[in-house]
Amino acid sequence: MKKLWGGRFKKKIDKDFFEFQKSIDYDYKLAEYDLYHSLIHVLALREAGILKDEETDKLTFALKVILKEINEGKFKPNQDCEDIHSDIQNRIEKKLGNLALKLHTLRSRNDQVVFDEKYYCFEKVMEIGKLLTALLKSITFLAKKYENQYLTGYTHTQPAQTVFFADYLGAFWNMFNRDHHRLTRFVDSLDNSIGAGSLAGTSLTREDYDRAIKKVLIDGKMKGIKPVENPLDNVSDRDFIVEFLSILVIVQMHLSRLAEDFILYSMKELNFISLPEEYCTGSSLMPHKKNPDFLELVRGSTGKIYGNLMAVITAMKGLPLTYNRDMQLDKEPLFSSVETIKDELKILAKFIKGIELNKDAIKKSLEDKTLYATELAEYLVRSEGVPFGQAHQIVGELVKYIEEKNKKVEEISGKKLKSFHPALNQKVIKKVMNPKYAVSAKRTVLRKSPKTRKHKK
Amino acid sequence: MKKLWGGRFKKKIDKDFFEFQKSIDYDYKLAEYDLYHSLIHVLALREAGILKDEETDKLTFALKVILKEINEGKFKPNQDCEDIHSDIQNRIEKKLGNLALKLHTLRSRNDQVVFDEKYYCFEKVMEIGKLLTALLKSITFLAKKYENQYLTGYTHTQPAQTVFFADYLGAFWNMFNRDHHRLTRFVDSLDNSIGAGSLAGTSLTREDYDRAIKKVLIDGKMKGIKPVENPLDNVSDRDFIVEFLSILVIVQMHLSRLAEDFILYSMKELNFISLPEEYCTGSSLMPHKKNPDFLELVRGSTGKIYGNLMAVITAMKGLPLTYNRDMQLDKEPLFSSVETIKDELKILAKFIKGIELNKDAIKKSLEDKTLYATELAEYLVRSEGVPFGQAHQIVGELVKYIEEKNKKVEEISGKKLKSFHPALNQKVIKKVMNPKYAVSAKRTVLRKSPKTRKHKK
Amino acid sequence: MKKLWGGRFKKKIDKDFFEFQKSIDYDYKLAEYDLYHSLIHVLALREAGILKDEETDKLTFALKVILKEINEGKFKPNQDCEDIHSDIQNRIEKKLGNLALKLHTLRSRNDQVVFDEKYYCFEKVMEIGKLLTALLKSITFLAKKYENQYLTGYTHTQPAQTVFFADYLGAFWNMFNRDHHRLTRFVDSLDNSIGAGSLAGTSLTREDYDRAIKKVLIDGKMKGIKPVENPLDNVSDRDFIVEFLSILVIVQMHLSRLAEDFILYSMKELNFISLPEEYCTGSSLMPHKKNPDFLELVRGSTGKIYGNLMAVITAMKGLPLTYNRDMQLDKEPLFSSVETIKDELKILAKFIKGIELNKDAIKKSLEDKTLYATELAEYLVRSEGVPFGQAHQIVGELVKYIEEKNKKVEEISGKKLKSFHPALNQKVIKKVMNPKYAVSAKRTVLRKSPKTRKHKK
Amino acid sequence: MKKLWGGRFKKKIDKDFFEFQKSIDYDYKLAEYDLYHSLIHVLALREAGILKDEETDKLTFALKVILKEINEGKFKPNQDCEDIHSDIQNRIEKKLGNLALKLHTLRSRNDQVVFDEKYYCFEKVMEIGKLLTALLKSITFLAKKYENQYLTGYTHTQPAQTVFFADYLGAFWNMFNRDHHRLTRFVDSLDNSIGAGSLAGTSLTREDYDRAIKKVLIDGKMKGIKPVENPLDNVSDRDFIVEFLSILVIVQMHLSRLAEDFILYSMKELNFISLPEEYCTGSSLMPHKKNPDFLELVRGSTGKIYGNLMAVITAMKGLPLTYNRDMQLDKEPLFSSVETIKDELKILAKFIKGIELNKDAIKKSLEDKTLYATELAEYLVRSEGVPFGQAHQIVGELVKYIEEKNKKVEEISGKKLKSFHPALNQKVIKKVMNPKYAVSAKRTVLRKSPKTRKHKK
Repeated sequence: MKKLWGGRFKKKIDKDFFEFQKSIDYDYKLAEYDLYHSLIHVLALREAGILKDEETDKLTFALKVILKEINEGKFKPNQDCEDIHSDIQNRIEKKLGNLALKLHTLRSRNDQVVFDEKYYCFEKVMEIGKLLTALLKSITFLAKKYENQYLTGYTHTQPAQTVFFADYLGAFWNMFNRDHHRLTRFVDSLDNSIGAGSLAGTSLTREDYDRAIKKVLIDGKMKGIKPVENPLDNVSDRDFIVEFLSILVIVQMHLSRLAEDFILYSMKELNFISLPEEYCTGSSLMPHKKNPDFLELVRGSTGKIYGNLMAVITAMKGLPLTYNRDMQLDKEPLFSSVETIKDELKILAKFIKGIELNKDAIKKSLEDKTLYATELAEYLVRSEGVPFGQAHQIVGELVKYIEEKNKKVEEISGKKLKSFHPALNQKVIKKVMNPKYAVSAKRTVLRKSPKTRKHKK
Repeated sequence: MKKLWGGRFKKKIDKDFFEFQKSIDYDYKLAEYDLYHSLIHVLALREAGILKDEETDKLTFALKVILKEINEGKFKPNQDCEDIHSDIQNRIEKKLGNLALKLHTLRSRNDQVVFDEKYYCFEKVMEIGKLLTALLKSITFLAKKYENQYLTGYTHTQPAQTVFFADYLGAFWNMFNRDHHRLTRFVDSLDNSIGAGSLAGTSLTREDYDRAIKKVLIDGKMKGIKPVENPLDNVSDRDFIVEFLSILVIVQMHLSRLAEDFILYSMKELNFISLPEEYCTGSSLMPHKKNPDFLELVRGSTGKIYGNLMAVITAMKGLPLTYNRDMQLDKEPLFSSVETIKDELKILAKFIKGIELNKDAIKKSLEDKTLYATELAEYLVRSEGVPFGQAHQIVGELVKYIEEKNKKVEEISGKKLKSFHPALNQKVIKKVMNPKYAVSAKRTVLRKSPKTRKHKK
Repeated sequence: MKKLWGGRFKKKIDKDFFEFQKSIDYDYKLAEYDLYHSLIHVLALREAGILKDEETDKLTFALKVILKEINEGKFKPNQDCEDIHSDIQNRIEKKLGNLALKLHTLRSRNDQVVFDEKYYCFEKVMEIGKLLTALLKSITFLAKKYENQYLTGYTHTQPAQTVFFADYLGAFWNMFNRDHHRLTRFVDSLDNSIGAGSLAGTSLTREDYDRAIKKVLIDGKMKGIKPVENPLDNVSDRDFIVEFLSILVIVQMHLSRLAEDFILYSMKELNFISLPEEYCTGSSLMPHKKNPDFLELVRGSTGKIYGNLMAVITAMKGLPLTYNRDMQLDKEPLFSSVETIKDELKILAKFIKGIELNKDAIKKSLEDKTLYATELAEYLVRSEGVPFGQAHQIVGELVKYIEEKNKKVEEISGKKLKSFHPALNQKVIKKVMNPKYAVSAKRTVLRKSPKTRKHKK
Repeated sequence: MKKLWGGRFKKKIDKDFFEFQKSIDYDYKLAEYDLYHSLIHVLALREAGILKDEETDKLTFALKVILKEINEGKFKPNQDCEDIHSDIQNRIEKKLGNLALKLHTLRSRNDQVVFDEKYYCFEKVMEIGKLLTALLKSITFLAKKYENQYLTGYTHTQPAQTVFFADYLGAFWNMFNRDHHRLTRFVDSLDNSIGAGSLAGTSLTREDYDRAIKKVLIDGKMKGIKPVENPLDNVSDRDFIVEFLSILVIVQMHLSRLAEDFILYSMKELNFISLPEEYCTGSSLMPHKKNPDFLELVRGSTGKIYGNLMAVITAMKGLPLTYNRDMQLDKEPLFSSVETIKDELKILAKFIKGIELNKDAIKKSLEDKTLYATELAEYLVRSEGVPFGQAHQIVGELVKYIEEKNKKVEEISGKKLKSFHPALNQKVIKKVMNPKYAVSAKRTVLRKSPKTRKHKK
């Protein structure tokens, strides 16, 4: 397949090396965006008088035919080509012969590839944003479904204090909402440009490009495409990929925590939640197993998403200006992270809706009185003016006592209770040490109805 | 040294474990911010009627004495304490006895530590922002000093095309300017809160906290401190640290590329720039050596900055809600990255000002005519209407010819030149193949005078 | 403080840069090994006739005085020095004046530092090996203490099949035993050398070095010190650090899994094990908490250990031969990983001995009959010749039935049981579905008595 | 497509989740090894009397038919299957109907997958070992071709001292030789086993497996297959993958350094080496470019190889025993690193043979007298008894002088030379400051003829 270079070369490229260096098997995903670049470029060449109107029309038509194929899902990359840019060039040559040789006038793949990748990031942020919104809605759905449900809250994987299930879910809602904002801030700062050439710009004017951009992208999806300002920076820059991958790292970190929590809460021994069966699998040996495979795969995907960021920043470390071929290796990690995160979010939004709470198991968990030790200490502070440090000590000793005696606090005699502090008795225990009291006493929590929660910006 | 917990414990803590788990040797850096938390908390306790005015005043005074010590650089952390929170508590106890036991009423270290760390991030972003601004100024200084200087531009570490030195530097200016914007966007999205308790909030009201915040931080540095909204999220959240470290990864990536380029350009064989001697070191064996140690250490620090991000995201992977002790390990990587980046930026701003261009060496480099091959191809396109694909082929063959013959292009006979294309002759060669023509023909580059470059937002 | 270079320099080093580049605050840990290098080097200089006997004796004596200080824990690095090599040189100069200037004859810090670091690795492998052996013993102790105890085995964090507790612990024993072998293989392949100079070797002969090595290290700890073979490789090589850090990554991976498991098994809801209180901490707010802090810090340290490997391999990426200053940054990650792993292993060996099993809780867990579903399917295969695929299906449907009916398998009528397969009845259920049957039927497991387990090589 | 589980499930698997969780698109690479497992397993079932001879023969035959397809490259994985184990099971069912249901008796995919992966690692180590051997041969070829060639040696990317080109190449030879040994040590410690079941072993005896193993692998490739010892460890263990990936990280680190060096040495400005054109590419815009793309892609692949290790160790962090679905995600990184390293090594062995030295350019580089500053200092030490510290200072000042005066050392008057040290004169300069003297004076270097270099173990 014809290459976009080669005049100065005496020898043919080594076959193994050709296979090693080609990128068509993954960069075909940029085809659509590459065609946008070509469409603008063709018009800019006409503005500059390098292409005639008729030539422009023919080239534009041929490009749009390929674009249509892509949009209809009919585009098949030619695996004999070096990359998507060469593939498209070859298709145009087949259709238009020598005229096609004018398409690559005054432009470089260095310019194309950064344009294509920025456009890709723009579109994928939009798609991930929608999936996050759907996930937020699923979380709100589940929170509303169990609106006044209490739950044992944990620190250090040990029961800590009672909370509302809706507030527990709200923590994840907040995480994914922050992710949404991060993506929004990122895409707002992302602009795109054309005209960098290889590294030094081209002899087309900024006005040539400007007019061309306006004509092509009249209904354009990505705003802010401009003539390049500093082409050396433009072709060297992969910040946007690192920034995108970093945001996805945080999304994945949240996903891994949700996965871990739901795996724990669905353990036979806690049994707070039942996972929707259609996202679990069984064992080929043990007939009774119903395993939380989806959550495990989500948790395990953290390796992939973290590794992809590491791959790109390692490749970029210490690269001299401007373009170096190392930078080709940013694409696979980018595509991998984007596609994995999309899959996870899409399935998770459905998964969450299928979760059911096992109220009995939760209720039993909430009967453990030590969950209300903090409330008891607060009671001593508020009602009796005991300095908190002492109240903490008193209740701590009470806990030690019931553990040693293997008793429940409600079984302790009034006399014994008084020995810890004169104000303690079973009436106080009953009043203070229960979920309703505990949760309602937490007055800092902002309890918006789930309906009124909104994306803030 | 007294701990903030312990009533329910029968056994004393193991000595090796105590050493392993304590954080005072690094978290003392949060002392200032922890005092802000305490100052607000004390006022909130008064608002809630838990502290009397007199008690409030005493506690506030004692806290401010420690704050003064910190501001005067006199604060020495007590290495026998578990952490900075315990250290401060112990100091207050020494001064105020039992009254100090009221300080920790209704609050948790889980709440304090996230408050402290957010405040730390806020202040460090401000400091790094200033250092970036100074670096941008140094770059502008150097660009102006050599305003009309040409430079060989590289792709693939091979000479590519001629550019302005100011545009070359402008690429780095753009990188660090983007970093500045990233930090600004980050800090704009960073808010802080108080009142999360351990995970479930406290019985103080949002109004109690609100009034307290307003009183303490009347001249406060960090805006946007609020009563907590979702305490489960609040104590679980380390997004801000990952986001900050991710931004520093990009800063460091830029630093590593600048270091690599300057190491190359100061190689004896290129000799484009002379590095300021006061940032180089010699060899203990080889008397002639002047090594670019600063740049090498900057490049090598990339490992540290990347590794620190990896450390925190690995620790956070799959952590169940809410607080887990694993999260203590976010501090050392955070502090390490912040301090390293600050050192690098501070020295680099001075370093850049000391760089000198070796104009003769650059001039010699620019005499290589193949640098203008692209311009020659463009000439054929523009003047002769040769399709670019063919012009590229023609010039490629010319390059192959002069390499085989080991000739310079200006030595080729007119007849031979014509054999490549009828329009080629030495007059054209002379006109087109020189730095001035090449650079001025790049009309896409936005050539702002360095003075007019501004931080955009 | 005097530097080991400087004759060709006109300007003094920048103060900020000096602070940035100096390594004395961490490389003082190499002091002992650096003295070994010097002791050998001095003798080699005498062999070559460059030092006189008297000079040799004076230098040797002065070096040994410092070595004694180190061994007695009295050595304090001088923070004004650049690095430990300069520090030691300065001390010798203070004692011996001009004679000290002969110490650095024909050697380079490039040679010293790689020698020192290899020696450090050698010694630390030995120390970690001993700690692993102690840990293996603790595990064996616990396994013997509960020798015939059953335990619920898990896959996918869901109960799977019954196993012996000793076999469960044996899995960790195997992991740490493999780690021990990995370290042994590593140290067996580690050799050390002297004489590389900066990169090109020195004019001392291999015989000079050979004789000197034999004299100094007559009772030497590290075997296999030799005259350098390829000095370019020698000063460039940091493989041994990456290999050591990679092995520690696997150790840490094992530690993180043990920590996770023990955190789960000590959850209130499983309660299989009680953690020794002296390795737990409480909450400053919640008086009842006893948190598995040690295990959490071990799990969280995974970030540090992974990040340290990442730091070194990132710094080494793409470094040109031979020595570059970037390589200085290998030390902090190396020391950090070694010291952290040592702390973890040391405490864990004690921690494990303090663990107690809660036999009642485990027994209750083992009463869940679905744990024996696999055994029931095997019974149908073995006794009735049912193809396993069908037996799996039959038992799967039985499990579905009891879940839907919320019944226990021992409550199902004989008639109903027969409807799943004619051979099923309560007698079979009773025989097959219990821990003893299940565990004794696993005939592949190699049941060595813990006493007879040995390190294999 | 039929799954290997499902009896207890009421709902069908979600389609998106099925796609997300399936592994057939990559784990088909394990097909061959999975068939080995099945072949052993079938014989073991016969040994245990569970399969009849006739059944055994039919199953064995069916398995071997598939094995033949694989060996002939005709095997196409069925993308509708969940994984390769299910794919093979389905093929057998199509051929043998109900008999096939007996194949999965008493075994688990947990056991199969770890067997398959260990076998894969074994085979790939062998393949990579051969490629490394070929690379070592190429390096030796090039070293011999330029046997007595000098080269400028570098530290800090600055000319340092003169070395033999063969010794320079020998540094890389050593690196790849160490890699070879690391792989050998790894594979020597790698054993494989069968019979773990899901986590608890099976009811087949160790003898059943032993006999089966001996029969199947009578001409088997992987030695050391044994009945499992501790099945809980066996199904949990992925150490071997982490260890393999860690070794490949070091191989890649070496590749990246070689790439960087060769990129530098082929820079137009150094021009020490010419790269074989068939491994370079051109520019689509700039007709004169010949870029070191292969080397850049090798350098850039470092990101991939590092990221793959990070992916697996992150996924394994904190996983509870025993098998978890997260572990499925070890395969793609493993395959990616193995295949990338193989490609790199294969091409590099050819690439190296095509390298040509530009002796003129090297000779010119060696004329720089400062390269011999160290030899001059040594001369003062050896001939005049000047302490090295002073000799270093004297020569340093001489270097400073010639730089300030912009003179060459051979142009300095005898009088001036004497002012630095009485023993200095042009005769000494001439004798000492040249490549031959410098290289022959390095007596530590072990100069084996390339022919006699051998893999040591």
